[in-house]
Amino acid sequence: MMKHISLLGATGSIGEQTLEVVRLHPEAFQITAMSFGQNVEKGLKAINEFKPKLVAVKNDDVKKELEQAMTSKDISIVSGLEGLIEAAVYPDSDMTVNAVLGSIGLEPTLAAIEARKSIGIANKETLVTAGHIVMEKAKEHGVQLLPIDSEHSAILQSLQGHNLEDVSRLILTASGGSFRDRTKAELENVTIDDALNHPNWSMGAKITIDSATLMNKGLEVIEAHWLFDMPYEKIDVVLHKESIVHSLVEYHDKSVIAQLGSPDMKGPIQYALSYPERLELASAKRLNLWEAGSLHFEKVDMDRFHSLALAYEAGITGGSMPTVLNAANEAAVHHFLEGRIRFLEIEEFVEQALQKHQVIPFPDLQTIQEVDRATRRFVNERIITS
Amino acid sequence: MMKHISLLGATGSIGEQTLEVVRLHPEAFQITAMSFGQNVEKGLKAINEFKPKLVAVKNDDVKKELEQAMTSKDISIVSGLEGLIEAAVYPDSDMTVNAVLGSIGLEPTLAAIEARKSIGIANKETLVTAGHIVMEKAKEHGVQLLPIDSEHSAILQSLQGHNLEDVSRLILTASGGSFRDRTKAELENVTIDDALNHPNWSMGAKITIDSATLMNKGLEVIEAHWLFDMPYEKIDVVLHKESIVHSLVEYHDKSVIAQLGSPDMKGPIQYALSYPERLELASAKRLNLWEAGSLHFEKVDMDRFHSLALAYEAGITGGSMPTVLNAANEAAVHHFLEGRIRFLEIEEFVEQALQKHQVIPFPDLQTIQEVDRATRRFVNERIITS
Repeated sequence: MMKHISLLGATGSIGEQTLEVVRLHPEAFQITAMSFGQNVEKGLKAINEFKPKLVAVKNDDVKKELEQAMTSKDISIVSGLEGLIEAAVYPDSDMTVNAVLGSIGLEPTLAAIEARKSIGIANKETLVTAGHIVMEKAKEHGVQLLPIDSEHSAILQSLQGHNLEDVSRLILTASGGSFRDRTKAELENVTIDDALNHPNWSMGAKITIDSATLMNKGLEVIEAHWLFDMPYEKIDVVLHKESIVHSLVEYHDKSVIAQLGSPDMKGPIQYALSYPERLELASAKRLNLWEAGSLHFEKVDMDRFHSLALAYEAGITGGSMPTVLNAANEAAVHHFLEGRIRFLEIEEFVEQALQKHQVIPFPDLQTIQEVDRATRRFVNERIITS
Repeated sequence: MMKHISLLGATGSIGEQTLEVVRLHPEAFQITAMSFGQNVEKGLKAINEFKPKLVAVKNDDVKKELEQAMTSKDISIVSGLEGLIEAAVYPDSDMTVNAVLGSIGLEPTLAAIEARKSIGIANKETLVTAGHIVMEKAKEHGVQLLPIDSEHSAILQSLQGHNLEDVSRLILTASGGSFRDRTKAELENVTIDDALNHPNWSMGAKITIDSATLMNKGLEVIEAHWLFDMPYEKIDVVLHKESIVHSLVEYHDKSVIAQLGSPDMKGPIQYALSYPERLELASAKRLNLWEAGSLHFEKVDMDRFHSLALAYEAGITGGSMPTVLNAANEAAVHHFLEGRIRFLEIEEFVEQALQKHQVIPFPDLQTIQEVDRATRRFVNERIITS
């Protein structure tokens, strides 16, 4: 059966790989609506190939530019947050894939849930900052959120055919990032270039830094808490430098189910799209464990990776605290990449922001956005006046 | 809901561990019928504790001995193959666990399938020699066979929630046994004591030798072929000396699902008993991958482990060939343990028996038993006259 998809964030990395999966399965998937920001060249290419009925772009300027460039007049073009929401709830779509970056992804997710679309979620803010709102709404409307990242997809796959109540632990694997073999002392004077040199794959700068601090894993712990309704004491992280075991689920009979594979985002994307079925993915590399040779696992030192400890604390405190964690981290990483602070200062500024914040329980969307802005301001001021 | 169980082979290793699982869950499991061979002391203890309504023993002599020793007269005691079948099809039982050793396990399995019991299968001969008969009958009566060994249980667990048609490969892990780090040349003069010194656990002598030759894995490949209706070219074996990953399933999107755990037969036994649910197993050891540290995987050298190559050949040929494989191996291992042949001669005699045999397609039970006897005779004669 054909699945009709609204793809938000079509020109980003996840968006492009989602289009690649759709391209591989024209019999199964069709793009009915899409959004992108302002990359008209890439956007136009995607429009011409996938022929959506609706396209949402960042603003009216981009809309005008796109209209002038387009030959087909059968495609509606909309803009701004309103347009993004229109794409998210497009009536012909069965599923909405949210691959936009940043907190702008929040409202479209909620709108799509209300419209009872199934949700493919790659937007981090949705669950980290508003998990309490999103999951309640998803429950209310009977909508399932399907994760689009390798760790949560691994957990979802390892939960199939089993009961969530029988789970004793979720175990997220972490590559450990660029500095996994260095001590804390050795991190004192690492450079931006050192930090950006990820051993397993190349990603954007922000996520590469988050991978080195393990903050990305901390955010994933918070996402896992919401996605799988799991208390924090039942979520563990294990260092696994080969990134072949993507994550694991332990059941109360001590049996552990894991999902493994060669690193390729198309796997988790396709699983979310085809869920609960599986489709072929001929282009993906077959995993032969004898070629991997050995897989290593190490306990996370929470002092060495202090960001992960901070994420657990923020998650357990809940309310507005994870928003502070995420905003402070984004601001601090930005300043590190601009050369204004040292690597170890990232976690220091995050910790300061968390300490200073008075937690607000059950914040609504507006409060979340205010806390986000206030936190970034706090970090920016500290760094610029220090 | 209470599951009523007929346990065949209650005093063997698997039988005793099955009783241990039943002991842990008096709310879930009850033994309604049991069988044992001739260990009256052990059998009586189990009868007094689990209070089955029917007990089957090896023969009339054991029956008499047991009757004299028993205080309760409410328990029926039966004997011989007929008694074993009576226990297997006991009307009050929902499930029949077949943990008897040897080809005597065959007929009770078939009878239990006809009586539509769900089947927990630890008896190797059932599938290795009569897979074609057993699986056809199971299909006809809509009965599922639930494996009781760690590898096939791992595969069953890794298949939950997924479609068998989406499977591209089953991957059985093998510890490699006592000689996994030796070359073929170094195997020339190994002793019985060397062979019995299994690095990961202590088992019976026969299975320890089968573990060193990888014949046990070959028999498991044949069982997996039948249990999961999988062609041999989709069944792989990988050496994994830590025995923590119990086996894996690869799907056609290249995603691999694996089951892991600390070695403990109670896990697979309980999973078969509680299937498709999971119950707590508090006594089992929690697996922390950071304690394991690293997991190693190696390709199997089919020349070095020639028995595994022979098993694949016998399986692919099918018909009566797997019966020859199993009988010749049992006879040869027996002679090795008696000091009559060298370690590497085990595979040589198995190969000779396979080469000499004219395959009979779709053998019935009687033919299987004749082939079994003829093969043992062939190996015995060769060894004793050589």
